[in-house]
Amino acid sequence: MRSFLHLDDLDDDGLGWVLDRARRLEAAPIQSSLRDKVVALLFMNPSLRTLASMQAGIAQLGGTSVVLQPGQGTWTLEWRRGQVMNEGAAEHMQEALPVLEGYADALAIRCFAGGSSLAETLEDPVLRAASALVTKPLINLESATAHPCQSLADWKTMDDLDLPRRGGRFVLSWAWHPRALPLAVPAGTLHMACRRGMEVTLLAPPSHVLPEPMLARARAAAERSGGSLRISADRAEALEGAQVVYAKSWGAPALIGRPEEEAELRRGLEDWCVAESWFDHAAPEARFMHCLPVRRNVVVRDEVLDSARSVVIRQAHNRLHVQKALLELMLGARN
Amino acid sequence: MRSFLHLDDLDDDGLGWVLDRARRLEAAPIQSSLRDKVVALLFMNPSLRTLASMQAGIAQLGGTSVVLQPGQGTWTLEWRRGQVMNEGAAEHMQEALPVLEGYADALAIRCFAGGSSLAETLEDPVLRAASALVTKPLINLESATAHPCQSLADWKTMDDLDLPRRGGRFVLSWAWHPRALPLAVPAGTLHMACRRGMEVTLLAPPSHVLPEPMLARARAAAERSGGSLRISADRAEALEGAQVVYAKSWGAPALIGRPEEEAELRRGLEDWCVAESWFDHAAPEARFMHCLPVRRNVVVRDEVLDSARSVVIRQAHNRLHVQKALLELMLGARN
Amino acid sequence: MRSFLHLDDLDDDGLGWVLDRARRLEAAPIQSSLRDKVVALLFMNPSLRTLASMQAGIAQLGGTSVVLQPGQGTWTLEWRRGQVMNEGAAEHMQEALPVLEGYADALAIRCFAGGSSLAETLEDPVLRAASALVTKPLINLESATAHPCQSLADWKTMDDLDLPRRGGRFVLSWAWHPRALPLAVPAGTLHMACRRGMEVTLLAPPSHVLPEPMLARARAAAERSGGSLRISADRAEALEGAQVVYAKSWGAPALIGRPEEEAELRRGLEDWCVAESWFDHAAPEARFMHCLPVRRNVVVRDEVLDSARSVVIRQAHNRLHVQKALLELMLGARN
Repeated sequence: MRSFLHLDDLDDDGLGWVLDRARRLEAAPIQSSLRDKVVALLFMNPSLRTLASMQAGIAQLGGTSVVLQPGQGTWTLEWRRGQVMNEGAAEHMQEALPVLEGYADALAIRCFAGGSSLAETLEDPVLRAASALVTKPLINLESATAHPCQSLADWKTMDDLDLPRRGGRFVLSWAWHPRALPLAVPAGTLHMACRRGMEVTLLAPPSHVLPEPMLARARAAAERSGGSLRISADRAEALEGAQVVYAKSWGAPALIGRPEEEAELRRGLEDWCVAESWFDHAAPEARFMHCLPVRRNVVVRDEVLDSARSVVIRQAHNRLHVQKALLELMLGARN
Repeated sequence: MRSFLHLDDLDDDGLGWVLDRARRLEAAPIQSSLRDKVVALLFMNPSLRTLASMQAGIAQLGGTSVVLQPGQGTWTLEWRRGQVMNEGAAEHMQEALPVLEGYADALAIRCFAGGSSLAETLEDPVLRAASALVTKPLINLESATAHPCQSLADWKTMDDLDLPRRGGRFVLSWAWHPRALPLAVPAGTLHMACRRGMEVTLLAPPSHVLPEPMLARARAAAERSGGSLRISADRAEALEGAQVVYAKSWGAPALIGRPEEEAELRRGLEDWCVAESWFDHAAPEARFMHCLPVRRNVVVRDEVLDSARSVVIRQAHNRLHVQKALLELMLGARN
Repeated sequence: MRSFLHLDDLDDDGLGWVLDRARRLEAAPIQSSLRDKVVALLFMNPSLRTLASMQAGIAQLGGTSVVLQPGQGTWTLEWRRGQVMNEGAAEHMQEALPVLEGYADALAIRCFAGGSSLAETLEDPVLRAASALVTKPLINLESATAHPCQSLADWKTMDDLDLPRRGGRFVLSWAWHPRALPLAVPAGTLHMACRRGMEVTLLAPPSHVLPEPMLARARAAAERSGGSLRISADRAEALEGAQVVYAKSWGAPALIGRPEEEAELRRGLEDWCVAESWFDHAAPEARFMHCLPVRRNVVVRDEVLDSARSVVIRQAHNRLHVQKALLELMLGARN
């Protein structure tokens, strides 16, 4: 597997291998499978978990990471073809990525910054541009449409907790937030839960339902796995019997690139903040999930995040294990 | 010892071990005591010495460090409990620290940014919050009230120079500075010199005497060690016979959180800039100390800093050795 | 060799050794020649290639790098002697560099930011200040007047391509750019090509010819090597038979420190953007070179950069190999 841009770049065998290997790496974290390897990590957006877990994981496998943060000590990058570069960006990705792959054995990139429209966002143009420019292994650390390392960690988290694949009841709920956030995590999460064979509900106000191409990809995954996907704006109905409530905020798809109008649309939706009462008719011991970072008492109340329901720290810890397994699959002794 | 938040987290035996081990590590810097270990370094404020010496020291012991700088490529962190997080901070320390300790074998944190009042500063709230959130070893890289790695380095520096513990005459002098700086270094330095058994004088304008709880802690340390602490605003009297003049600027304790009023109070104190004439009645070969960074010709004149009196570079170099000893004590083979 | 501040710090034997060793390191990149070594990298200006290639290269040789970026998480540094430091800079290089060399086995510094006048620039004052402050190996990662690691990489690139040393026709062409850029790369490139024994042409509008001291140094190198240097503002004449066209933008030397006037002088020179037509009368298979980052369709058109002529990626990749050889020469087992 040359690149890991989307969860579907792993077929079922590959996914099974990664999840199994991640479990074994959790028990035996120190390995030498990446000895003498260098991985370049390019962050075009902020990060805590990804930055720290990639660096720690690469070190625990015996390798070295190099971090580059355009705009923070490194030149700002252009990615659009054919530009006359007489404005802010001093360097084009057409040079930066081929240069970096000469220094490293693999590249990983975070590039989730929003496009100027839904159509552009759905094309995931920065990730696509990056992918076209490199020949060495490339890992998506969150792009405009997917965050597949997060999806792997979430899948493992549900496995760890014995949450059923086939038939497990999974609700992805939109939540309020002061800004319009990207679609990568909700789209990836919906697809992951569907591919896992779960009975998935997307709970969101009508203005914030995910765009049809993302829904279609999740539905197709559900069909293959025996899962299902339905959409609801009715909180009570959606949460009935839920075994997992996964919260996340995102911007209204139709208004990507028009933040003022989007903010207007979000006005009055502040009660989309997950509270303990949301679990009144959920399954006993229903779990709360979130990819982090999370704004407390905006997206979810302290009473939920600080309760035994919350598995957000476990999700984050699993980032380490699944990424190490993925790096071994792509770069390690197994190759 | 799980955490090193204050010099007093080391009892006399522990302190003796660290100082002795630091001396041996200075002679034999390359060790493998941290092999396979990852230390996460969280910098909420700028750093040069701490950043470089922690990274270099961990590498020389065979370990790996991961650096996180909130606001510089990593999400800005909230630390106060119960906040509705609808402003700048995208993540709460309640998530960030438990997540990070899943990736690392130990954490170290710099969080000296001032509180909004003296009372809040004295509680050292960010460090306290951090400490309550982690179970793995935690090292204070300078908080609102203490900079214990600096204190260890300063102690070793005086040992290196054969400056007497019992009875050595140590003056901590306030100095002018264009901004109101934190209390961590002066409080920690005063306490360190008192615990070392020295005859300590705090030389400061009345407006800038350290707050009573900090003085009380230093006095208690002096009582246990056979040292002493007195306070003076009279430069001539204070410097008479001094073997060490340790300069540092800090803000008026009573005006923490009110920078304009504090600046008014500092007006006219620009002659608190250590000059060679300050040493006219000091001991022969009296030493000049400072924790760095230092503003030349503001806090101390070039004539002092560039003279043989100055041991500031030795102090900084000792940061490396004492921190390595500390890491071995907390994480290494000795455990 | 204690320091590598200019290409001429390597005599012909040393240069030959580095180029030869770089070729062998390209074939066998993993070595242990820097085992247990720490190199501190101080970046006072942005970087992508230098940052990534130094870190990757040091790791591939078994060493560790520590990155410091004043103004990005590290105190802003003053370098001028005798200043009253009551403005932005919190620390002086007089402390920072001696401190850092206590933590590391070698230092490398990038400090190309322009002086306030041509006279000051020609003195390369920040690099000179740094060099006077350290006793351990010091590497110039681009200063105001030289970028010798780039020169080494460019030399190797021409060797790789079998471009003749004696008699090879090398054109360094000025190019337009929205800002007045430093002189380090053009001065270093001109000198490198002259020292390589090539027939060198500096092609630039009269306002942008390099200052006489830089030309004199290049001419002296040409005399020693049997090469030559001429200056031309006539594109057709200069490019006739060229085997290499090396493009770079730089500010008018006479107007350093006066950016508005310099911008006025550049007005109307936008057609100094290398196009395929520039090669109409060049040698068959003439090469295009640039040090990167490059502004596409400003300094050079896509049609050139994306053609087989362009060897800019190879130049950048050679940075890795030559720097590793240099580190081995200065720090490694050979010492």
